[in-house]
Amino acid sequence: MNFFYLLDLIGTFVFAISGTIAAGQKRLDLFGAAFIGFVTAIGGGTLRDMMIGIHPVSWTTSMDYIYVILLAVAITFLIKEQVFRFRKTLFLFDTIGIGVFTIIGVEKALSNGINTPVAIIMGILTAVAGGVIRDTLNNEVPLIFKKEIYATACLVGAIAYLGLQRTGIPIETNQIVTILIIIAIRVISIKYKFSLPRVQFDQSKQL
Amino acid sequence: MNFFYLLDLIGTFVFAISGTIAAGQKRLDLFGAAFIGFVTAIGGGTLRDMMIGIHPVSWTTSMDYIYVILLAVAITFLIKEQVFRFRKTLFLFDTIGIGVFTIIGVEKALSNGINTPVAIIMGILTAVAGGVIRDTLNNEVPLIFKKEIYATACLVGAIAYLGLQRTGIPIETNQIVTILIIIAIRVISIKYKFSLPRVQFDQSKQL
Amino acid sequence: MNFFYLLDLIGTFVFAISGTIAAGQKRLDLFGAAFIGFVTAIGGGTLRDMMIGIHPVSWTTSMDYIYVILLAVAITFLIKEQVFRFRKTLFLFDTIGIGVFTIIGVEKALSNGINTPVAIIMGILTAVAGGVIRDTLNNEVPLIFKKEIYATACLVGAIAYLGLQRTGIPIETNQIVTILIIIAIRVISIKYKFSLPRVQFDQSKQL
Repeated sequence: MNFFYLLDLIGTFVFAISGTIAAGQKRLDLFGAAFIGFVTAIGGGTLRDMMIGIHPVSWTTSMDYIYVILLAVAITFLIKEQVFRFRKTLFLFDTIGIGVFTIIGVEKALSNGINTPVAIIMGILTAVAGGVIRDTLNNEVPLIFKKEIYATACLVGAIAYLGLQRTGIPIETNQIVTILIIIAIRVISIKYKFSLPRVQFDQSKQL
Repeated sequence: MNFFYLLDLIGTFVFAISGTIAAGQKRLDLFGAAFIGFVTAIGGGTLRDMMIGIHPVSWTTSMDYIYVILLAVAITFLIKEQVFRFRKTLFLFDTIGIGVFTIIGVEKALSNGINTPVAIIMGILTAVAGGVIRDTLNNEVPLIFKKEIYATACLVGAIAYLGLQRTGIPIETNQIVTILIIIAIRVISIKYKFSLPRVQFDQSKQL
Repeated sequence: MNFFYLLDLIGTFVFAISGTIAAGQKRLDLFGAAFIGFVTAIGGGTLRDMMIGIHPVSWTTSMDYIYVILLAVAITFLIKEQVFRFRKTLFLFDTIGIGVFTIIGVEKALSNGINTPVAIIMGILTAVAGGVIRDTLNNEVPLIFKKEIYATACLVGAIAYLGLQRTGIPIETNQIVTILIIIAIRVISIKYKFSLPRVQFDQSKQL
């Protein structure tokens, strides 16, 4: 198994944990938690594949993702107190996850003939759509629409990845540098409380 | 028309009724009710087909589903008091519906080259995703994430179906036995108030 | 650039504005607003393409839609007070937009072998699904499930379009007449407060 694939599985694992925790905050049952854990982990890639036309969608062709997700749901359910002790580690892995998902999204789009700007959008979507679906199913406005720099880190990462690709550096180096850039942006933006400007409209004003 | 197809249409009919009733609880208009009735009935199969790569998605190739759904919405709108008198019958047909949808999902997945465990997931998804979309559009946390044994019955049914298939019994017998198993699990779990354990997390605890 | 394509871009522009305004009512950040603006504008067409099997989905093959959407989000964010001054113009363009989207949906469905009644459904879906996704992401029951004649105008427009097509009039004339019909229905229904009957069910009554 190559290193990048391992990172992909770790990202999947942490995304499934975040889905299970969100489900637990609404006191859902194990099926609800597994369902939300599942779509959090595979939602972004599934949406990307359906829009590009990759059939069947990627997660269905390997059992690895399913095992990793079921394991994440089970662990989160069984030893939930311990899960929170590792929240800094989980935060790091979550950020590695969005980095890996961004790169996979850009690569899959480009290798299926999608143009570069749309490939960047597909990279961001692969990373963020799972979390958007998680919160929507959980009857909340998606967290990443309000909180910190998240998708922006994916955007910068995707552009950096494509730029570095042109320099001819090995792909593994490029992957690691891109993920480090995304981690750096997210960590710095949280430390210094950077966030995007909000859009504000009066509720009464409707088109 | 074969018997299994008739059950499929009955399932579609009852799913559309459940969507229309949900819409009515939010006082939506007839279009909203028809829209939610429609996606409740065809949502699971549509999602399955888009993920597997069956195009155009199944419901678009026959007018039967559309007629059945429009009929269900109209009847529920016109004689709503009477609809509730038949709630026990509707409950039975709804359960037959999830049984039929599970079997169709498993079969379509397998015949499109999907591996067995993923085919089981596709079977469950075909049965439950319509209800999940119904509640999400209706701005509620999906009922089946919290209530009784529902998806679990589909899971057991799907496994039983695949197991019985290996014994070489006729497919019609297998279909009937599988549906009876799903009905039995659901009825018993409601009678004895079985439910899956809940996952519980403090709202303040976020990853 | 032909006239109909210009109308398509104008519709996309106004849909993106409506998404950005909705996001602003929940005080989302710029990414959230851009995300919702985006899916409001391209959501209906994307869903249609995924169901019919047009891959990659239409908006990915041209940069025009992306530029128009980003422009709409930026303008709405920067000069939001002014945006509301043009609300009558925006309302008109929004209605032109649903007309154009309905026609495109019907045409794409028919030219991909979809039968006529389903093509009408695809036309309506292309026009309304973006707004449904916008409100769902924004954690609201979709506005068009409750408010005025909206989808009904698309339904009448789609039928009129197909009927006029049989008379052999030039397609440009047909497009303009269809859009005028949709505008007329929507304006008259708002002026005279026409709306569809509501479906009403007691919350306690569940299937």
